[in-house]
Amino acid sequence: MQRIGILTGGGDAPGLNAVIRAVVKSADQHGGYEVLGFKDGFEGCLDPEGVVELSLDAVHGILPRGGTILGAANRGNPFARKVVRAGKEVMEDVSDQVVGRIEQLELESLIVVGGDGTLHIALELFRKGMPIIGIPKTIDNDIEGTDVTFGFDTAVNTATEALDRLHTTAEAHHRVIVLELMGRDAGFIALQAGIAGGADVILIPEIPFDFKGICETIQGRAGRGRHFSTVAVAEGARPKGGEQVFRRAGDELATARLGGIGQTVAEYVEGVCGMESRVVVLGHLQRGGSPTAFDRWLATRFGAAAFRLAVQQAHGRMVALRGSNIVDLPLDEALAVPKRVDLNGDGILTARTLGLCLGD
Amino acid sequence: MQRIGILTGGGDAPGLNAVIRAVVKSADQHGGYEVLGFKDGFEGCLDPEGVVELSLDAVHGILPRGGTILGAANRGNPFARKVVRAGKEVMEDVSDQVVGRIEQLELESLIVVGGDGTLHIALELFRKGMPIIGIPKTIDNDIEGTDVTFGFDTAVNTATEALDRLHTTAEAHHRVIVLELMGRDAGFIALQAGIAGGADVILIPEIPFDFKGICETIQGRAGRGRHFSTVAVAEGARPKGGEQVFRRAGDELATARLGGIGQTVAEYVEGVCGMESRVVVLGHLQRGGSPTAFDRWLATRFGAAAFRLAVQQAHGRMVALRGSNIVDLPLDEALAVPKRVDLNGDGILTARTLGLCLGD
Amino acid sequence: MQRIGILTGGGDAPGLNAVIRAVVKSADQHGGYEVLGFKDGFEGCLDPEGVVELSLDAVHGILPRGGTILGAANRGNPFARKVVRAGKEVMEDVSDQVVGRIEQLELESLIVVGGDGTLHIALELFRKGMPIIGIPKTIDNDIEGTDVTFGFDTAVNTATEALDRLHTTAEAHHRVIVLELMGRDAGFIALQAGIAGGADVILIPEIPFDFKGICETIQGRAGRGRHFSTVAVAEGARPKGGEQVFRRAGDELATARLGGIGQTVAEYVEGVCGMESRVVVLGHLQRGGSPTAFDRWLATRFGAAAFRLAVQQAHGRMVALRGSNIVDLPLDEALAVPKRVDLNGDGILTARTLGLCLGD
Amino acid sequence: MQRIGILTGGGDAPGLNAVIRAVVKSADQHGGYEVLGFKDGFEGCLDPEGVVELSLDAVHGILPRGGTILGAANRGNPFARKVVRAGKEVMEDVSDQVVGRIEQLELESLIVVGGDGTLHIALELFRKGMPIIGIPKTIDNDIEGTDVTFGFDTAVNTATEALDRLHTTAEAHHRVIVLELMGRDAGFIALQAGIAGGADVILIPEIPFDFKGICETIQGRAGRGRHFSTVAVAEGARPKGGEQVFRRAGDELATARLGGIGQTVAEYVEGVCGMESRVVVLGHLQRGGSPTAFDRWLATRFGAAAFRLAVQQAHGRMVALRGSNIVDLPLDEALAVPKRVDLNGDGILTARTLGLCLGD
Repeated sequence: MQRIGILTGGGDAPGLNAVIRAVVKSADQHGGYEVLGFKDGFEGCLDPEGVVELSLDAVHGILPRGGTILGAANRGNPFARKVVRAGKEVMEDVSDQVVGRIEQLELESLIVVGGDGTLHIALELFRKGMPIIGIPKTIDNDIEGTDVTFGFDTAVNTATEALDRLHTTAEAHHRVIVLELMGRDAGFIALQAGIAGGADVILIPEIPFDFKGICETIQGRAGRGRHFSTVAVAEGARPKGGEQVFRRAGDELATARLGGIGQTVAEYVEGVCGMESRVVVLGHLQRGGSPTAFDRWLATRFGAAAFRLAVQQAHGRMVALRGSNIVDLPLDEALAVPKRVDLNGDGILTARTLGLCLGD
Repeated sequence: MQRIGILTGGGDAPGLNAVIRAVVKSADQHGGYEVLGFKDGFEGCLDPEGVVELSLDAVHGILPRGGTILGAANRGNPFARKVVRAGKEVMEDVSDQVVGRIEQLELESLIVVGGDGTLHIALELFRKGMPIIGIPKTIDNDIEGTDVTFGFDTAVNTATEALDRLHTTAEAHHRVIVLELMGRDAGFIALQAGIAGGADVILIPEIPFDFKGICETIQGRAGRGRHFSTVAVAEGARPKGGEQVFRRAGDELATARLGGIGQTVAEYVEGVCGMESRVVVLGHLQRGGSPTAFDRWLATRFGAAAFRLAVQQAHGRMVALRGSNIVDLPLDEALAVPKRVDLNGDGILTARTLGLCLGD
Repeated sequence: MQRIGILTGGGDAPGLNAVIRAVVKSADQHGGYEVLGFKDGFEGCLDPEGVVELSLDAVHGILPRGGTILGAANRGNPFARKVVRAGKEVMEDVSDQVVGRIEQLELESLIVVGGDGTLHIALELFRKGMPIIGIPKTIDNDIEGTDVTFGFDTAVNTATEALDRLHTTAEAHHRVIVLELMGRDAGFIALQAGIAGGADVILIPEIPFDFKGICETIQGRAGRGRHFSTVAVAEGARPKGGEQVFRRAGDELATARLGGIGQTVAEYVEGVCGMESRVVVLGHLQRGGSPTAFDRWLATRFGAAAFRLAVQQAHGRMVALRGSNIVDLPLDEALAVPKRVDLNGDGILTARTLGLCLGD
Repeated sequence: MQRIGILTGGGDAPGLNAVIRAVVKSADQHGGYEVLGFKDGFEGCLDPEGVVELSLDAVHGILPRGGTILGAANRGNPFARKVVRAGKEVMEDVSDQVVGRIEQLELESLIVVGGDGTLHIALELFRKGMPIIGIPKTIDNDIEGTDVTFGFDTAVNTATEALDRLHTTAEAHHRVIVLELMGRDAGFIALQAGIAGGADVILIPEIPFDFKGICETIQGRAGRGRHFSTVAVAEGARPKGGEQVFRRAGDELATARLGGIGQTVAEYVEGVCGMESRVVVLGHLQRGGSPTAFDRWLATRFGAAAFRLAVQQAHGRMVALRGSNIVDLPLDEALAVPKRVDLNGDGILTARTLGLCLGD
């Protein structure tokens, strides 16, 4: 009986359970393999109680469920693990313990499901000789090596549905409603949900925005009888000139700066453009819920593909989606550069063709 | 041809369009009636352009849509209308203009769809001789005269679905997630969604809460291996002792006070109970979306019943739900006292039987 | 430690798991009680392996899930249980075995969650001395003793959403689309979903229908430029004159008779009214899915109330909803007559006020 | 002012309205263009009343709605249009009339949104000199030239949600539930929804199936304590040997043959495998509903790209999705071969890795 390990790391994303189930079902079908799950990401490799055998029963019924039955801790970087020593929080490199644990358990492969951060850790562990296979997971879609990852489609649907809900209220009450979405460095959720949800203004981190342009769009709409607008803004979107702008805008934005960028935009619209406005911060609602069909389909294909890599002992690789196909590529190549919205791609082009305001 | 007017006032609530459609379809079926819609609540009675004839075509396809095709202004109290005079905002009583407009249009009845505020205005207008028929509408369910109003069921479903989404993330990441829900004075949404969504702590305006009890519940759960909890808190929930408590809790809560009560509870849980926590403020998402089947069914019954009252010239009355039946009662009686969660009712009793924390 | 048993019987209904969870959480909170679950309804009382202890862990995470973790067998009437004897299927009275098993396990109370059929069995067992407490459950809403039962609201929402989906297709393709819904003897689902989903024709078992009236409605709409209609028909709806009518309508309806009433209506509309038509039979989709907030709220209140009855040793009673309150009443009274759509109630009145076709 | 025409043809698909809106908004933004919509596909080119100008107002609020505001007739092939001559239905070539109408209206481009059938007609019209631009639309995903079309993602989500609903009932009642899905020649919906919805058996047109294998899978599951299964079957799936098999299986399948393949499989499972079974035919529910975020995003990108092709006068081409990008290619190339599930692709490979039964 050969052993495969699996762990999930980083922020929550719908589809993690579908991956785990796919690996376990694949191992059961293949025969000759047992699957061990580590609890709370790499933490489970440090704790003797952190390992659980994953039988078919353990994964029964989890396909449609958000979250991860394995848990996913937040301080889980074994190269820089937060610990308290003499009353002070310090970083400790415990990666050798992780390596030792994997060897002790005689794992043939360790499947690591995670985002950019977790996969970089996995790559370092691979360089230390561990039999790593990576599966990308990110709400933000910021991993270059794959067209898209699971969790993203669910998040975009959640955000789009939120825009639908807000749209009718904005229209009935002649308001501007600002929806702040996830995306610290990459604006994929705001761009796709913004277009799918009919937002009039879409602000993303890749394009520093100008408050004036927003006002022109909103007031232009009002001039054509549309006394309402909706704005989709990524949490990482920033105005041209950054902090300077806030300072110039003066006191009325003081409290807004304590909130996020959504709050700032809403206060600007109300204070300067003269339209009543409201803000909704979607936050963690984007990370939960039952995964969409696409995310379950992708996560299941990723899980099955990762298991096949394990059988082939093809370590140091990451599974990925290219067009309609699942491929695999070296982890270091997949993670070389983070992915950002292509300013010449057809998402941005579509927004411009339709005349949406991108803030520039 | 006799004329009926209709207007919608106050905050948004799913089902307003279903009411309008029901009135128009009823008038068309009955024959001999035309329906005039006023735009933006009572504002439409002040503006010569504020009236639109509502044909079957005008209401085609609106049954499943949130919002209101008539709009609903926010400064719409004709007894105290905000206007700017000599650069200053003042209140003006324009109710006589409203009365005059209704008489000029020769309306036999004016159906007013609104919450507590709008219906109180309607009652005053009835006392001035206007042929008012009221239809209750409130997300918060705080109108005593009716078992429930449309919009509430949709809001509770939205809030419950949000708790579902947050629950799996809370569990996977060992966090406390606080969901702040609508309800300034009445805790119905938080109570029902809290129970339906499996919240461990439910805080409502009717029960001043004790931070200590929250900690005990959350830590008690952790002690039994449940290293996560979810909290449903109504925006109007307040700690015992109110502001005092915040002051005693010191600086770490300073920023929290700028946010809502949800933020405060989350910071307390993280700072004092020692559990990582997050907050989501559901806000306007509760007011939008396609109405649930129940809300459409109720709104349609209300609309049809209001039309029948119009035919009977039964003015000064409000339609209401009692058990499974639609009834009507005098507006003043319906609005005599606001509705609050019954502390001896079976909602609270259920929470106690299950051992949920209500903060007291 | 005192013991309470619980079992679920009859057809599936969203909310069963919420009931089970509520009973288990209530018992845990109260202290001094353990809860035993019987698998597959009364079958679990006949099989030594049919009992399982229900801990908090056993009910963790089941609140939002359809189905029942206890299972619900279909041949489960212990007074007339299907068994094969000498190659022939015969009915056997094994009720004494059930009584014996309950006594042997020293159950203080047995909570039976079921529809009309299962609760009648429970009533008979109560008459034989068993400590029965009933919780009503029916998709069809046909239990007189309660305003409504859990499962119904979810079914109506599923049916309404189906009408929404079909409506746009019917309109775009100028078709009549017939949706066949559950309801063999009671038309509540078809009536409420029909109104909530904007159906033009609603056919229920309580009102024998006339094909001619349907044609007039559909063709009348076409004459006003609405070249499409949607029809909601309960599976138990029947034309006036019954089989006679089919025979007269001749050969073109021959195959339709092998399908359900939905197929018959669709073929009639196409063959006689001359409009292209399609039929969709919603079937078991109405029995599944995550329960709505209302159904979870109701099911949880029912479960908590049943536990309180168990503590009070109040046997032979059924919990019920009356207005906004949970009450309890004698089982025999609750089951005395089956509930049907009130032809003078405001549901039917609403349909008539709006001019919907009820087939009469 | 230059003129662009647009029409929608063939079966319904969520996203058609999003395409129309995108074209109209693009034209408005660009300036110098007006958009004419033809009603009911090519029929609108034959009827003097069949044209409508599409302003921004006309497309307001249609983004989230299923169906098509332009309608889509079913007899719309102008090369072989069904007409009644002397009491007989005959086919007539009216393509010259269509060409004449387009010329008379001085359309610079005609955007045709349709599936395989409609686009083949468009190709023939292009060969007759018409300025055609194609946008692919198919629920079934059977157009080779594009990775995927809009409508498909919504259909797969609807089918997956149906499997979720049926799964808990199947489990609670120990049944086999068969879900019949769309796909006469291509099994994409059944394959993807089957995997996403956790079906145990997936039957598609591309793989003739063996009843025996189905029984083995279902009974094998029962042997491991899973006394239930779900089956996803495409309407076009056929057993090995086809009709022969039905005949051999004898009388018990006689009625089943009048139903679809889903009914046949369910009767076989009940009659031969000895497990209680039910069937649900999802039918037109797959064609309706609000489009998913992905379908709106794709449809909007298609619409904007088609408008840009119109500006460039690039006729005879079809827009398509390749990976994450929108491209365009010659219509004849795009339609050269119909797309089928790749038996060596990773969808099938995933099913085999997980041990799902594909019937072979």
